[in-house]
Amino acid sequence: MKIYLNGVLAAAAETRIDPFDRGLSLGDGLFETLRVHGGIALRQDAHLKRLRRGAGVLGIPLANSDADLMHALAATIKANDVDEGQARLTLTRGPGMRGIDPPDDPAPTLMIAAVPRAHADVKPVRAIIATHTRRNEFSPLCSIKSLNYLDNVLARREAKGAGADDALLLNSIGAVTESTIANVFVAVDGQIVTPPVKDGALPGVMRADVIKAAGAFEQTLAPHAFGQVSEAFLTNSLGIYPLIEVDGKKIGTGEPGPVCRKLQALV
Amino acid sequence: MKIYLNGVLAAAAETRIDPFDRGLSLGDGLFETLRVHGGIALRQDAHLKRLRRGAGVLGIPLANSDADLMHALAATIKANDVDEGQARLTLTRGPGMRGIDPPDDPAPTLMIAAVPRAHADVKPVRAIIATHTRRNEFSPLCSIKSLNYLDNVLARREAKGAGADDALLLNSIGAVTESTIANVFVAVDGQIVTPPVKDGALPGVMRADVIKAAGAFEQTLAPHAFGQVSEAFLTNSLGIYPLIEVDGKKIGTGEPGPVCRKLQALV
Repeated sequence: MKIYLNGVLAAAAETRIDPFDRGLSLGDGLFETLRVHGGIALRQDAHLKRLRRGAGVLGIPLANSDADLMHALAATIKANDVDEGQARLTLTRGPGMRGIDPPDDPAPTLMIAAVPRAHADVKPVRAIIATHTRRNEFSPLCSIKSLNYLDNVLARREAKGAGADDALLLNSIGAVTESTIANVFVAVDGQIVTPPVKDGALPGVMRADVIKAAGAFEQTLAPHAFGQVSEAFLTNSLGIYPLIEVDGKKIGTGEPGPVCRKLQALV
Repeated sequence: MKIYLNGVLAAAAETRIDPFDRGLSLGDGLFETLRVHGGIALRQDAHLKRLRRGAGVLGIPLANSDADLMHALAATIKANDVDEGQARLTLTRGPGMRGIDPPDDPAPTLMIAAVPRAHADVKPVRAIIATHTRRNEFSPLCSIKSLNYLDNVLARREAKGAGADDALLLNSIGAVTESTIANVFVAVDGQIVTPPVKDGALPGVMRADVIKAAGAFEQTLAPHAFGQVSEAFLTNSLGIYPLIEVDGKKIGTGEPGPVCRKLQALV
């Protein structure tokens, strides 16, 4: 495997992250996961736009142009011979010696990896509502894809411990936000609905496409609503997944729904 | 500078963090910062206890005994000739190829660095109340010292942008929790008070010592309370700092208070 790191493509085993990188010491950075299809990273414009917005929120300078970043993505995908799979772009504030104040003259770390994926994993998802942690809708981190992913890791651990596939995270007032790796949509009264970003949902790239394609609305979603919806599904850049069960209760018929099946063509 | 990494002390420039380390990719890990005084890391028992508790919360296996960890700390401090300064111990879940599910058989990363500090920095602190983000008291991450430090970085940036030294973070209901790098105490009606852990305060090692030494109480702290207190101070493992101003308003006389000055002997 080859990894792109600050302009150089090299074997993963020879790629060295500085032990003082603030991405490691403080989670001070961002990432994007892109689907690779036919050797091409999909929706690059939208991913790079979100990356750039996140860099603005964190104040991480990103000197590379979009064209630079696209060349680097393409080169990494090609070097790893990935036809179907995914690419991950990671941007950190770079090394910082100590304390939380950013260095005056940061040297950001830009890393790209690309891996094939074993199979198009779109099997139906059984989820729980996470009880161990919640999303913090007061934090700007909710609307950028930062390296601070531990709440999601904790919720995911809770799901696996309960024999489920994934967990849905609530926000501070108990509204549904998203799953640990995907946005959530429900069909209710003939409308397709997804939690708003202000409730703590990540503005997902696939989410935006699905909102457009399905004419979906943003609306606060209470957990008890799953008892009343005809179908539900999860979306992320890698796929659209039927959500067929929440906390042990079937959604609709318990089978993948027609809206989800139709939207999967988007992927 | 020499760094301890998984049993080996080596030059920092030769120390390599794996690009797939989950500490970097997901903030999946913990750290402890210890004060070094006379070549010895202080309060090791309390720091290692908190580290071990955090590892339990995250499910990161920590095979090393306390004696192992203390030997590693001592060796790192000695290799860097640190008499007065600080040591940082970082524990991550180690490399993981992709996705957020932890590997079945994790190989954690254990890293220790030690640096001298330029001076005993106990100058009075002027703080703001952060408005850009808040602490998430619903998350177990509030009570462990995880690598997810970006909310604090954001609040710190807000403080510096406002010409202040530090920021105090509120929780979801608007109660004061802590500063970006320290716990907060106030003196009110002859009592010393600090926000409870359940409100979102990190259970700081120095905080515990100060609670004992000052007979302090845990009590929810509203931001307007700063107008009524006779003094306030901040504590972390490296020091106890007078807090003399919040949002431009002097606390008490605007001078370091007697309780703070007395407690500084603890450091």
